[in-house]
Amino acid sequence: MPYPEKVFLNGEIIESKNATVSVFDRGFLFGDGIYEVLVRINGHFFYGDAHLERLSNSLKKINLSFDTSPLKQQINQLLAASDLLDQDSLIYIQVTRGVAPRKHAFPADIPPTVMMYANPITLPGINANHLKALTINDYRWTKCDIKMTSLLGNVMANDHAAKNNAYEAVFVREGRITEASHCNVFFVKDDEVYTHPADEFILDGITRQITLELCKKNGIKVREEAIPHASVTTMDEAFLTGTTTQIASIKTLDNHVFYQGDDHPPVTAKLQKAFDQLKKESYQLLV
Amino acid sequence: MPYPEKVFLNGEIIESKNATVSVFDRGFLFGDGIYEVLVRINGHFFYGDAHLERLSNSLKKINLSFDTSPLKQQINQLLAASDLLDQDSLIYIQVTRGVAPRKHAFPADIPPTVMMYANPITLPGINANHLKALTINDYRWTKCDIKMTSLLGNVMANDHAAKNNAYEAVFVREGRITEASHCNVFFVKDDEVYTHPADEFILDGITRQITLELCKKNGIKVREEAIPHASVTTMDEAFLTGTTTQIASIKTLDNHVFYQGDDHPPVTAKLQKAFDQLKKESYQLLV
Repeated sequence: MPYPEKVFLNGEIIESKNATVSVFDRGFLFGDGIYEVLVRINGHFFYGDAHLERLSNSLKKINLSFDTSPLKQQINQLLAASDLLDQDSLIYIQVTRGVAPRKHAFPADIPPTVMMYANPITLPGINANHLKALTINDYRWTKCDIKMTSLLGNVMANDHAAKNNAYEAVFVREGRITEASHCNVFFVKDDEVYTHPADEFILDGITRQITLELCKKNGIKVREEAIPHASVTTMDEAFLTGTTTQIASIKTLDNHVFYQGDDHPPVTAKLQKAFDQLKKESYQLLV
Repeated sequence: MPYPEKVFLNGEIIESKNATVSVFDRGFLFGDGIYEVLVRINGHFFYGDAHLERLSNSLKKINLSFDTSPLKQQINQLLAASDLLDQDSLIYIQVTRGVAPRKHAFPADIPPTVMMYANPITLPGINANHLKALTINDYRWTKCDIKMTSLLGNVMANDHAAKNNAYEAVFVREGRITEASHCNVFFVKDDEVYTHPADEFILDGITRQITLELCKKNGIKVREEAIPHASVTTMDEAFLTGTTTQIASIKTLDNHVFYQGDDHPPVTAKLQKAFDQLKKESYQLLV
């Protein structure tokens, strides 16, 4: 993906090549910030409220006082300036604790830095990919429910996957699958769907939440339980969820092949179809 | 500490108010960078080579290719431009993976961002403080040997300490003391010094290494063993080490008071005196 043309920075919309922050921004010095990624499809922010609520919750968890309520209007201004009102788009939002001389403890009463941009996006629809994933030791912190910009752990894991021609790195903490570097992970066994509970060891993805809803609506039983790494080979199906990944089938995890051929396994395929329908029809869920 | 006057940024020395980086710098988006802090005392970089070697090692651990060899000359240029050649100073160095459109996996072949600044500093000499510290659950990742800028975990811990009028937050991982948010932690029991081994759960501080050397030279037995949280109250002394903290006595850790009165306990005091001598005399160790 290239650079966007425009960047929203602290209330102004500017050319992205001019979008700079002080080297004393705590986002640069400390990774002291929160981010969010959402998509706009067919003129609607897909679960936009859920994304903004999660942004707000993560900011609270790091004691960063910030009012997210002007963001909707500002995002619309950004989309207009970026000539993206008539196209599907991805919107990135980052809020950092602001600019101050370097000191670990939070400075008092400085304005946060707000940066957003939007890029055109073509979402996969019913995600046709057959993905490869690798497991990796989950060496990250234990507050993974916070969507922070201190992302080096995720970056290193994702790069490990990319260098091995895999789409994702799937974390294993104390013998159990938690999540992937930028997706949630699901398994299917005997027509039941398994995924890690939404605790401090994973980010509770919006697409994860939607997928759990879709399971309920389609009569698929869900168990929010962590799958032992050793049990992966006994699972029937595996898939990833994420805002841009949507619902994507995992064909191989390390050396284990979940299925042969070009057809996605049945429960994954059913959920992908339901997700695609949701995007097309359920605008009552959208904001 | 105020802002410095000058900042070294990618080869140029500029006014700090003009020192900005792109919002697409991976230091800002991902905390994808390494940093170092060193001091220059009486015209010498105190263990400068050790600091630059650690910077180099941390960069290697995150697969960030960067040649640190020009830094010494560049630091001298920065000190000259900052009018700090005749004063003791603190030098901050940060290297990030550079500027690229946002994507977790590392971009190929982009130049790293290098940012440095220097501030005048007055070091405590024989640190006369009687510090208060608090314990906190060590929720950080398990690659603490990497001096990364993804520091939100440390920032939150340090802020917790500051809000409770304490100097430091001391991390406890699985029942054992690891280190503090920006210092290493030592204990003394029956004239023996204890500190966590230099593994993936702590940053191996340069002042930690110096302190271990000083113990050897002064006939003080050292055990690099993690102290159980439950044993803290049985310890005779406790102290912190760090580049700017030097060797600082902990008077209270949570509710436990290590000593009464205004005199530091004997082993801490002996090491502080030895450290102060080292700064004054041992220029063969300095670069």
